[in-house]
Formats: sequence, structure tokens, C-alpha cells
Amino acid sequence: MSKIAVIGIGPGSMADMTQRAKAAMENADIIMGYNTYIELVKKHFPGKEFLSSGMTREIERCRLALQKALEGKSVALISSGDSGIYGMAGIMLEVVNHSGIGIPVEVMPGVTAASAAAAILGAPIMHDFVVISLSDLMTPLEQIYKRVECAAQGDFVICLYNPKSKSRVDYIEKARDIVLKYRETTTPVGIVRNAGRENEASDMATLTNMLDFEIDMFTVVIIGNSKTYFENGRMITPRGYDL
Amino acid sequence: MSKIAVIGIGPGSMADMTQRAKAAMENADIIMGYNTYIELVKKHFPGKEFLSSGMTREIERCRLALQKALEGKSVALISSGDSGIYGMAGIMLEVVNHSGIGIPVEVMPGVTAASAAAAILGAPIMHDFVVISLSDLMTPLEQIYKRVECAAQGDFVICLYNPKSKSRVDYIEKARDIVLKYRETTTPVGIVRNAGRENEASDMATLTNMLDFEIDMFTVVIIGNSKTYFENGRMITPRGYDL
Ligand SMILES: C[S@@+](CC[C@H](N)C(=O)[O-])C[C@H]1O[C@@H](n2cnc3c(N)ncnc32)[C@H](O)[C@@H]1O
Ligand SMILES: C[S@@+](CC[C@H](N)C(=O)[O-])C[C@H]1O[C@@H](n2cnc3c(N)ncnc32)[C@H](O)[C@@H]1O
Repeated sequence: MSKIAVIGIGPGSMADMTQRAKAAMENADIIMGYNTYIELVKKHFPGKEFLSSGMTREIERCRLALQKALEGKSVALISSGDSGIYGMAGIMLEVVNHSGIGIPVEVMPGVTAASAAAAILGAPIMHDFVVISLSDLMTPLEQIYKRVECAAQGDFVICLYNPKSKSRVDYIEKARDIVLKYRETTTPVGIVRNAGRENEASDMATLTNMLDFEIDMFTVVIIGNSKTYFENGRMITPRGYDL
Repeated sequence: MSKIAVIGIGPGSMADMTQRAKAAMENADIIMGYNTYIELVKKHFPGKEFLSSGMTREIERCRLALQKALEGKSVALISSGDSGIYGMAGIMLEVVNHSGIGIPVEVMPGVTAASAAAAILGAPIMHDFVVISLSDLMTPLEQIYKRVECAAQGDFVICLYNPKSKSRVDYIEKARDIVLKYRETTTPVGIVRNAGRENEASDMATLTNMLDFEIDMFTVVIIGNSKTYFENGRMITPRGYDL
């Protein structure tokens, strides 16, 4: 039966994948995705057909998925984390709509990087939060900074995805400076690299020194709100219970 | 071995639970949680000891978990969705810190309601979004509205948790009115009740008519940003790919 499932595989390890995602991948004829993610899962699905492609190849990947589905294959298109958060779900639906071909597309959610990072740090997103991508590949930089500013004004916990890449090293510094207009220099900042993957690492920093820690394209940065604190090695944003 | 795992079980069905969460529950001596969630999982873990309690009993529940762990039990304390998003992770860490007792607490993430609801609707949170709880049990109402206002100003997709309860029927109306100051009346709004549970249902509405649909305490409301649209029965927030 030709269909496409867009699957969030979670942060990285098989343990953090949902049972629905695992079963869908086992039942698919082809598993498609970005190289790095195919490498993560390949050994857990022996004998499957895999099709991997480069990072900025999202549209081609979706068109190929559509083509394979039209050939009668059941396709599992994977994203890290949740497939619906800066993942493949939106673009796959857009490509199918644009084609006018009525192939069924099922979206399967997963544990997003913010949740995975938060669990490693303790409980930093227990209260209202925002998720912002600092990638300006498809979003004007002014809009990104405006969102950081609104989030800071609203005293939201701020989760930054795509905080840095080789070509974008200073956006995170600018974002930090915007938040500093509204929050104390001592505001806790949690930095998690490679959550649920080999080389998982985390740091507990503050707005002052956060740029001294390693931040790369596999990092989530979580900036606390005005109530967030560190205690016993955990980052906690209290919800307001009276102990 | 006495320890506490605070586990996000996902939106409701076993299929959307991570394999880590399932294994941790199977290995625990006691599974504890809010009545409704214990009822959801009970039949899938036959022979386990369960301890359930009422909704506003979070602190007692954590103290009991601590006590059981001190008696040498391995405790699984469950939350729906992600345990770190308005779940039990924060309060459990706070109760342990407050007690001064060094019981290890592990936080295990899960698929949060926003991700589950988004997958049902299509792909509405493909771009920067906020998660806001409309419950004023522990948050001043002015702060909640301020956050809604900041989120609207920043053109974030807005996910509303706890949108309505018996005692809070008009907060969602007020939130809607705030967003209307910044967005078109035709802005798409997705409403998902009981994601992944019996009686799962969803509606596609707009800022104008959203209040005509059923919204209760098991509902997530997702208000689109200025680019969000409905097509072929799906709610899509484009990331900006050029098709
Ligand atoms: C294109 S986005 C994909 C997000 C993904 N769909 C999700 O829901 O987690 C890529 C960004 O997600 C974050 N990310 C994804 N997986 C991660 C992991 N395992 N550890 C840390 N950050 C991760 C990083 O900020 C990275 O730059
Ligand atoms: C106290 S919060 C718990 C959130 C949970 N920890 C999570 O990450 O999804 C309860 C609110 O979450 C939302 N919610 C949780 N599970 C849901 C589901 N299965 N379907 C729709 N909404 C849900 C509703 O807005 C509900 O009022």
C-alpha cells in the first residue's frame, strides 16, 4: 500500500523512540532521511532499504518520497526529535498538496530536542516557554531577533534550536544580548549537546558566561525565566508550588 | 535499589510511549500518578503495584514517592505527555531537594501534547512557537495575559494548554481577544481533544469562530502565526521552502 509516514525518531537513541515510530519503520519498505539520522538508526533496522540525502535537500527528499510512494512503496520519512518541529512534516505535506496527488501522509510525533535536553538538565521548562530557531536560512534575521525580544519581555523560558553553525556564530551572542536587556546576568542557562546520542554533554551556565561553553549545531540552549535556579546540579523552573 | 523515575508517558496510547518509559515502568516496584493517567496505563502493566491520587495532590504524591523510595522501592512517577512540561519533574526535584535526602531522581521525557496535537492537525508548529498554560492556579492571570500578548506580538504559533476548566471558562476568550489585536480574524486555529486517547477529536477553526467548538481540560488549542493555512484538511505553518 503506497503511503508516506513522516516520523519523529526522538533525540537519538532507540530508547527514546516511541513504539509507534519503531513499528512504522519496521513495516515500511523504505526509510528515508538526512544522512546523519539514517546513520543513527540504520543498525537497528537490518535488511531495510535506506535512502539518505544531504542537509539542505529537503524538497528533493520529499519529491523522492512521493515518487517512491507512487511506485507502490510504503515510505518512512524520518526527522530527529519531533517530525512536526522544524522537521519534515510540513514540507512533506506541502509537496504532496502542491503535486495534487492524493497520497496519504501520516505524521507521527516524537520527543523533541527541548524535552530531551530539559530532562538531562532537570526541569527547566516546567513553565511557559518558547522554541525559537536561530537559523536564518528561511527566516529574516530581524524576525528572529524580534521573537527573542518578545520572548524575553514575556519572561518565557527560551529554548534555542540551531543556535550556531559554521556560518552563524554571532547570532547566539546577539540573542543573549537581547535577553540581557530584560533578565539578570545570573539567569541560569542550560546547554545540552547531542542529547541521547554518543558524546551527550551538558553545561550549566548563566547569561554572563554562556558563550564560554561549546555550542554547535547539535546543541539546544535553554535560557531560564526570572524564577529559574540551579540546585544540586539540576536546573529548575518552579511552577509555583508552596513547599 | 531505591530511586525515583519521573516518566512522561506521552499523550495517551501505549504506541506513543517511548521504549525507555515502558521499560522503566515494567522495572519499577510501584507506579504512581494522577488517577486519570494511572487508569490509562494500568491494564498494560499487569501485576504492578499502583498508587493513584487526585489532581491537586502533587506535593503529597511526591512526598509519598520519596517515602516509598526511602523504603527501598524503585518508584515510577508518571505524567501525561512530557514529564518536564507542566508535569511532575519539577515538583519531584523540588521535594527531594527540600528534604535534603539524596535519593536519585531520573527525568524521562515524553511526547508532549503540543506535538501530539500538531501531528493530528498536520504541521502547525513547524516554525517558532510558544507553549502557555491558561491555568491561574499558580500563575497570576495578568502574567498569563502578558505572555499571550508577547507571543502574539512576536507572531509565534501559540499552543495553549489547560485552556478551560469548570472554574475558568472565559480565559480562553480573553486570550483570543488579545491575539486578535495582532492577527487576522481568519487566522487558523486547530483544536485537539484527547489526543491519542479514546474520544480523540479535532476541529479546524479560525480566531473568529474558535469559541464555538468544544474546548475542555483535555484540549490543546493551537493558534497559527500570520503564515499558517489550512489545505486539504491539514493545518500547515510553512517554514519558508520555495516549492
Ligand atoms: C532542524 S532542527 C530539528 C529539530 C527536531 N525536529 C526536534 O524536534 O528536536 C535541528 C536542531 O534541533 C536541535 N537538536 C536536535 N536533536 C538534538 C539533540 N539530540 N541534542 C541536542 N540538540 C538537538 C539542535 O538545536 C539542532 O540545531
Ligand atoms: C497539566 S498539563 C500536562 C501537560 C503534559 N505534561 C504534556 O507534556 O503534554 C495538562 C494539559 O495538557 C494538555 N493535554 C495533555 N494531554 C493531552 C491530550 N492527550 N490531548 C489533548 N491535550 C492534552 C491539555 O491542555 C491539558 O489541559
